[in-house]
Amino acid sequence: MRIIGIDPGLRRTGWGVIERREGGRLSHVASGVVATQAGDLAPRLAVLAAGLRAVLAAHAPQIASVEKTFVNRDPAGALKLGHARAIALLVPAEAGLSVFEYAPNEVKKTVVGVGHAEKAQVAHMVKILLPGAAPGGADAADALAIAICHAQHAGFAGLRVGA
Amino acid sequence: MRIIGIDPGLRRTGWGVIERREGGRLSHVASGVVATQAGDLAPRLAVLAAGLRAVLAAHAPQIASVEKTFVNRDPAGALKLGHARAIALLVPAEAGLSVFEYAPNEVKKTVVGVGHAEKAQVAHMVKILLPGAAPGGADAADALAIAICHAQHAGFAGLRVGA
Repeated sequence: MRIIGIDPGLRRTGWGVIERREGGRLSHVASGVVATQAGDLAPRLAVLAAGLRAVLAAHAPQIASVEKTFVNRDPAGALKLGHARAIALLVPAEAGLSVFEYAPNEVKKTVVGVGHAEKAQVAHMVKILLPGAAPGGADAADALAIAICHAQHAGFAGLRVGA
Repeated sequence: MRIIGIDPGLRRTGWGVIERREGGRLSHVASGVVATQAGDLAPRLAVLAAGLRAVLAAHAPQIASVEKTFVNRDPAGALKLGHARAIALLVPAEAGLSVFEYAPNEVKKTVVGVGHAEKAQVAHMVKILLPGAAPGGADAADALAIAICHAQHAGFAGLRVGA
């Protein structure tokens, strides 16, 4: 089972692909960031979609795990994040992947053991759980954590593969 | 010049295509609604994207005019609307259209003459400005108003056609 984790953001969307083998062993396949330059929103979203499509084509995951947005007290920020997140949900759905969503504290709890872990702790555990992985930056590490979160849940709850 | 107006919503996204001829005369081409059923967000966004792509293929507008979201005090609502709006911006951008955005009060001011007009007034003016148009419901009428808004602005400010 190959899983892509996606940490959506308009400026930087982190992604990380892992593989979960028989017995629950995880391995790092690839990870990185799709970045967009400031400018008009519509072409920016198109750049983000094209970048994610290229990642799916290159690494062929069957399942997508996308971070649920934390709705804070800032509606303008929520709206902006909602735009990026919509692309992170749309692109894998259109490519026929099953798409799962996990809240940030769910991801942290699964990967670190506590729901309010620091970013550095998450990155540290990602490196332990995926030996040899050298994620390019915090966004890619977060995305790998989101992929790991699904791998662990799928391992416990039984697999749900296919669109 | 053929313009599609889009009024984004997760449950119902209104769309309306108009033509602006030499001299500024407007005519109604087609209008309607792309609806999605309650359920998982990712496949819902895929239904919305597929619906809008079909509309673009059928009516071949060169320009898209999309309503800017009104950011209210409800972050959860803003987030949800942001998801639908991202698709309304992405699909025309990917199809090579120029995409313009107008705030709701800008649309009302252009179509009715005041920024805080009632929905019924907007629908009434749409019927007067597009003789013979029978938009299917309020969402389609709103979408036509958004298209008219761009047609009027383009008429005054000079055309900006092409991606």
